[in-house]
Amino acid sequence: MADTKVYRASTTAPVNIAVVKYWGKRDPKLNLPTNSSLSVTLSQADLRTLTTASCSAAYPAPEGDSLLLNGEPSDVSGARTQACFRELRARRAALEAADPSLPKLSTMPLRLVSENNFPTAAGLASSAAGFAAFVRAIANLYELPASPSELSLIARQGSGSACRSLFGGYVAWRMGSAPDGSDSRADQVAPASHWPEMRALILVASAAKKGVSSTSGMQQTVATSGLFRERITTVVPENMDKMEKAIAARDFAAFAEVTMRDSNSFHATCADTYPPIFYMNDVSRAAIRAVEAVNAAAGRTVAAYTFDAGPNAVIYYLEQDTAAVVGTFYHLLGGLDGWKADSLKGAQSAVALDEAVAGLLQNGVSRIIMTGVGEGPIKTDEYLVAEDGTPAKR
Amino acid sequence: MADTKVYRASTTAPVNIAVVKYWGKRDPKLNLPTNSSLSVTLSQADLRTLTTASCSAAYPAPEGDSLLLNGEPSDVSGARTQACFRELRARRAALEAADPSLPKLSTMPLRLVSENNFPTAAGLASSAAGFAAFVRAIANLYELPASPSELSLIARQGSGSACRSLFGGYVAWRMGSAPDGSDSRADQVAPASHWPEMRALILVASAAKKGVSSTSGMQQTVATSGLFRERITTVVPENMDKMEKAIAARDFAAFAEVTMRDSNSFHATCADTYPPIFYMNDVSRAAIRAVEAVNAAAGRTVAAYTFDAGPNAVIYYLEQDTAAVVGTFYHLLGGLDGWKADSLKGAQSAVALDEAVAGLLQNGVSRIIMTGVGEGPIKTDEYLVAEDGTPAKR
Repeated sequence: MADTKVYRASTTAPVNIAVVKYWGKRDPKLNLPTNSSLSVTLSQADLRTLTTASCSAAYPAPEGDSLLLNGEPSDVSGARTQACFRELRARRAALEAADPSLPKLSTMPLRLVSENNFPTAAGLASSAAGFAAFVRAIANLYELPASPSELSLIARQGSGSACRSLFGGYVAWRMGSAPDGSDSRADQVAPASHWPEMRALILVASAAKKGVSSTSGMQQTVATSGLFRERITTVVPENMDKMEKAIAARDFAAFAEVTMRDSNSFHATCADTYPPIFYMNDVSRAAIRAVEAVNAAAGRTVAAYTFDAGPNAVIYYLEQDTAAVVGTFYHLLGGLDGWKADSLKGAQSAVALDEAVAGLLQNGVSRIIMTGVGEGPIKTDEYLVAEDGTPAKR
Repeated sequence: MADTKVYRASTTAPVNIAVVKYWGKRDPKLNLPTNSSLSVTLSQADLRTLTTASCSAAYPAPEGDSLLLNGEPSDVSGARTQACFRELRARRAALEAADPSLPKLSTMPLRLVSENNFPTAAGLASSAAGFAAFVRAIANLYELPASPSELSLIARQGSGSACRSLFGGYVAWRMGSAPDGSDSRADQVAPASHWPEMRALILVASAAKKGVSSTSGMQQTVATSGLFRERITTVVPENMDKMEKAIAARDFAAFAEVTMRDSNSFHATCADTYPPIFYMNDVSRAAIRAVEAVNAAAGRTVAAYTFDAGPNAVIYYLEQDTAAVVGTFYHLLGGLDGWKADSLKGAQSAVALDEAVAGLLQNGVSRIIMTGVGEGPIKTDEYLVAEDGTPAKR
């Protein structure tokens, strides 16, 4: 009798925001980076991808593997997605070869359904959470014994920064040196519980799609920036070292300084690209001035800005400094969506900002996200594929 | 009988806009730079400082040396201005010692009156023209036999980039290596007549005073940017070499690429400063996108952008490419002050720009300046000090 069962596994996976940035590939095919990087994994209560991986011999073979992303069919024929399928199937096939009693899942078409709990239009890097959930869900479905770090080798091939979303807390992606990428993987520098007070206030500065994709942007930087070599050979190695020490010591001032300097350095190499790449805009720069004013008013470093490949400001701070940090932004932007009453305790005080800075933020920020450090992927019984294999209605 | 005569000399001096930028001092006291730089001197028909230097034994001694700048008394007690006075007086005193028949001008108080023919509020670097005129006018008054390159050693101590305004055409400031600065001087790479077709369209993006002064900004960059070392040791020496070759060969495409790359590199090191320095804004970045669109439409490089320590775009192009370059900007900004009918020949065609780019330029550019490569300081009989020593009425 043919096995027509639908096998299913679901996971959520988090977004991560780097404090030492990944920018530049030394091997575009294998997604091997020019430098190590380090990120904070953000709470899945606020930002997460939920993915159900399913497979069945009853799925029509001509369809092949498929992915429904936020309700829309998504192309899975790209080399990166195919590399993930191939690597995961090979590991499952090895298990099946070793234990013939196992069902032959590696031979069945895969049907994946994935949803983000945040608007894609917010311009937040969703590919990291997306590929981490993708790999983790299939690994769960296949019951692979692989560790998160081993899975990070696979997720990296889907989207570089996805390898860091396989862990919670504070996560490093070690660039490695092996030509085959076998040592270019993520590891956990510290769990979320080591420094659970870390918070992130995200100022969503634009819902517009960014002009230059990260993949193409970083290739242009590697090829044309005269300053890039110094970043990868000197600046980033020093920042990685300082950042790991800052996290180990829970030293926010040191964490903040490296975070801000590394964001500046990354965007400087973008501006030094030919033609230049600009991800930050006048609203982003106003957010920097506001963070500087907040720190100056506090008389110590209570907030740190960082910007990915887009204009949104991510502002890290510690829970105990909520009053010193959040009040200024709430005072200006209190009318926007995304504020959480229980994360505003004591945030009544506001620092007076330069008029131009305040105006840019009020006109240019479209919504707020309040979150903090969180856990890695979480297995769940919530399925986006029904028992009979049909995708769940949204 | 006491000599009560008022001695006078007048000169005009030009603005220059660097195509390989000066940013960073290795000796702040002597104004010795961390790297060589190269500029185009702009026509004094459009942008110039007129300075009259005068001296008289009849000037009241308690007043001492004085400077009236654009009708306002200006402080001359600063170390840089004092250094210029001292150096020029010492050279005059040497002449007087060698020839006792010369009047003792070196012992008399100096009265200088200076005026710009462009609005100071335009945010154009007026200190270069100002100190060049200051030094040249006193050198004329003192009848010093010094060459422009020798005078550039003095002007450099007033304002670094002023040393380049002592020449017309294409001018290099050689950083030198002597600790006393004796080899950190300007020389002419090529006269204006070598490549007289060079034009500059300036988009004045803001009349607001800039946030961080060049002097303090470059010190912060030297002290804090992790990428700056690479700029001064590798990027600029290569750019200087390429730029001199491009000018010698009148190769506009090469001139333009180095100009744009060097501007990008300079602003990248500003963005990499901690805290970061931003001179360009969204209007500046829109000007870059417009130049890229103009070049793409022409199918070759016909325009090059560069930005000093402010948001104004300076767009270099050749006279024969007026139609390809100027039309696009005239179409968008034709209502602004500063267009010259005789410099618009054939500039009817306009490249279609991205809507956001066009909007930023239309809302953010306040006036236009049309000019081109020009001559060095010019002696003139127009005096801003009357024969009796009184400043001319404005």
